[in-house]
Amino acid sequence: MSKNEIPYKIYLKEDEIPESWYNVRADMKKKPAPLIHPGTHKPLSVEEMEPIFCRELCEQELDNDTRLVPIPQEIKDFYRMYRPSPVVRAYCLEKALDTPAHIYYKFEGNNTSGSHKLNSAIAQAYYAKKQGLKGVTTETGAGQWGTALSMACAYLGLDCKVFMVKVSYEQKPFRREVMRTYGASVTPSPSETTEIGKKILSEFPGTTGSLGCAISEAVEVATKTEGYRYVLGSVLNQVLLHQSVIGVEAKAALDKYDIVPDVIIGCAGGGSNLGGLISPFMGEKLRGEKDYEIVAVEPASCPSFTRGKFVYDFCDTGHVTPLAKMYTLGSEFIPSANHAGGLRFHGMSPVLSQLYHDGYMKAVTAEQTEVFKAATQFARTEGILPAPESSHAIKAAIDEAMKCKETGEEKNILFGLTGTGYFDLVAYQNFNDGKMSDYIPTDEDLEEGFSKIPDTSDVQF
Amino acid sequence: MSKNEIPYKIYLKEDEIPESWYNVRADMKKKPAPLIHPGTHKPLSVEEMEPIFCRELCEQELDNDTRLVPIPQEIKDFYRMYRPSPVVRAYCLEKALDTPAHIYYKFEGNNTSGSHKLNSAIAQAYYAKKQGLKGVTTETGAGQWGTALSMACAYLGLDCKVFMVKVSYEQKPFRREVMRTYGASVTPSPSETTEIGKKILSEFPGTTGSLGCAISEAVEVATKTEGYRYVLGSVLNQVLLHQSVIGVEAKAALDKYDIVPDVIIGCAGGGSNLGGLISPFMGEKLRGEKDYEIVAVEPASCPSFTRGKFVYDFCDTGHVTPLAKMYTLGSEFIPSANHAGGLRFHGMSPVLSQLYHDGYMKAVTAEQTEVFKAATQFARTEGILPAPESSHAIKAAIDEAMKCKETGEEKNILFGLTGTGYFDLVAYQNFNDGKMSDYIPTDEDLEEGFSKIPDTSDVQF
Repeated sequence: MSKNEIPYKIYLKEDEIPESWYNVRADMKKKPAPLIHPGTHKPLSVEEMEPIFCRELCEQELDNDTRLVPIPQEIKDFYRMYRPSPVVRAYCLEKALDTPAHIYYKFEGNNTSGSHKLNSAIAQAYYAKKQGLKGVTTETGAGQWGTALSMACAYLGLDCKVFMVKVSYEQKPFRREVMRTYGASVTPSPSETTEIGKKILSEFPGTTGSLGCAISEAVEVATKTEGYRYVLGSVLNQVLLHQSVIGVEAKAALDKYDIVPDVIIGCAGGGSNLGGLISPFMGEKLRGEKDYEIVAVEPASCPSFTRGKFVYDFCDTGHVTPLAKMYTLGSEFIPSANHAGGLRFHGMSPVLSQLYHDGYMKAVTAEQTEVFKAATQFARTEGILPAPESSHAIKAAIDEAMKCKETGEEKNILFGLTGTGYFDLVAYQNFNDGKMSDYIPTDEDLEEGFSKIPDTSDVQF
Repeated sequence: MSKNEIPYKIYLKEDEIPESWYNVRADMKKKPAPLIHPGTHKPLSVEEMEPIFCRELCEQELDNDTRLVPIPQEIKDFYRMYRPSPVVRAYCLEKALDTPAHIYYKFEGNNTSGSHKLNSAIAQAYYAKKQGLKGVTTETGAGQWGTALSMACAYLGLDCKVFMVKVSYEQKPFRREVMRTYGASVTPSPSETTEIGKKILSEFPGTTGSLGCAISEAVEVATKTEGYRYVLGSVLNQVLLHQSVIGVEAKAALDKYDIVPDVIIGCAGGGSNLGGLISPFMGEKLRGEKDYEIVAVEPASCPSFTRGKFVYDFCDTGHVTPLAKMYTLGSEFIPSANHAGGLRFHGMSPVLSQLYHDGYMKAVTAEQTEVFKAATQFARTEGILPAPESSHAIKAAIDEAMKCKETGEEKNILFGLTGTGYFDLVAYQNFNDGKMSDYIPTDEDLEEGFSKIPDTSDVQF
């Protein structure tokens, strides 16, 4: 590797950590549809949301107008422990691909939570603390979000109650132990500690739980316990707002070296990473100042953008949440076993759904086996063992770079490397043993999911 | 946390990556005693070492005179992927301790191997590649060193054969899968692939293996296979030389802000991290230019510095290696179950042993439970889940900072945070469950170990 003006890793200085989050909704002509009450089908007010979320987060959820939302000093202090995160030039991957393209990735994995989730966890914990609350509740599947929230709560001295899907609690004990080390209480769900948990256990003795059930338990505890609120790691507008720190930093780092990305790629489950990464770039695109190509990558096994419907639906399988207008496969759609746990959500952020619907971004799918091939090539050349979720973006970035090889174009490709795969070694083992399978849902599978979407034909948004 | 002139993380620029390793042996008046042949008791020559190690590494092993050894460009290019590593000011830990001390740590864990081991792995792999070899062999216990070597070999296109202690291979499959992802072949040891492995299996059917046996198998394959050599992750002079990149970077980062450490603390197993961290500082101390207090921290369960003998001994339990003069508990000493796998070695680097013997550094011990208490406090305040090994240094740094609280001294404390604990969650689980035990060997335990040290009373060094 010869010397080059652009370093391997572009680090902003600590005093260049963004002062504000970027609210892309302010630039959208067609705003994302509001959350509605599942009974009345009317938009939710701050007052209706307040029993569940703390007040300032409710306001952020509904604020479609403020473009720059100042980041409180206490959150910037926490960010300083693991941010700014670097934009890395993938010199070694480029060399291995023999491509004229320049590949950059924004790396969010250099913290103990192992992903970008910490960016919103600290924000949500901070507003809860500021409101004088005692603690927060949440659910977690494999444990990425729960870990991030535990770290944020430990830092602020806030109690943290995590309901972890029982099968993960038992079979993936390591993230559970990280959460416990950070002082969180971790309860396998369903549990005897809630009404809904008891009900499910009596109906289905021996069940290993589901994310939908864990959400229901977490919401129940938050609403029934004095001084507690519920928090969520993706999908919501507020989460995309907090995650915009990824994009604002990425843009500042590239601007430093006059690099303009031609293509911006992110994996998409609930949309927190992709929405955060693209926010300031999408803002320029919406205002007609620049024309970036923006690409969402989703697993072929859970194709909400590419094969879903753009309608109002529940965010959870337990149907305790409000309805959101989004690309959805139906809240009861169960994707086939897919190790990118973070991309198995049936729906998609309402903000991204609206942008996709209006043609401002495109979406592609990737199959599991080819995703792990890309992950392995990336690990061997760039040194970082990537998370399965992030590897969807790697796969798409490699595809784009190989197209450049054919055409000779020197495109600048930016993708989001959301995290590391240190807690996903069972998936890597399956791949290394040749035991990984690809399953693409049939049209019948999808129809089954669509059939459970509630009728909201009376809604105007 | 108020603004301060010193950032949380001091990052050197990529063009400030050191040009040279620092060979502290050049500053030692009393040089470390040479490795000797176990049969003849004569110092080993380059020629005698060459069947095992590649030539340039043999020369580095014996070079007691060259202070600055240039780092080859190819190795600097690899370092650029994950270096320079930051020196972090532990503002949040200081605040939690309410100490006037300033605590800094050099963090070596931000790479997929999870530790500093990569610094020497790439160097050893590079010299093997340069010599035109096909591959290297090594042994690994929990897998930290094997992972680092796999990453280095994948980058250079070198074959990597790892013998992994069978019990770890089966019970700790995750690092094994990281190695496989990087293309290494990982064989549970003892195996049927070597003579020594077959012999041990026939004598002890069902054995779960030992590091000593894995070393023997790795050496056998290296010496019997055309184009292969054996590599080792600690103890050797060459390894300390490569690891000096830690200390040279740390010193450059502190110099940038005119910070002079009063106390420098590192955990010590075989000595690779501690030796690397202190090299340039110790150089100044040996030349009488500065007077740093330098502290080695070892587990109370494996106290080679504090309770061992300074004599010639084997480096392995299988007695296939040369003899090294070092602080040792005897090559057959088995420490009690201690989760800091990297600190369970019975001996200590000959360089550090000589420096300790000559009074240039001191050593303290820490017990397992208090080490994990310190680890947990560090995780909750500084955000990083530390490796058990590194946590020994954290414990000593906290003790030092609390002394400062009593005396009111504003000491600068620097310690080495060698890695992350993401693959050590079983140990954290034991601690979280209150099931961690401390065992300090009795004098009888030590006498048993000492009784197996070979007689080398005829040796002059």
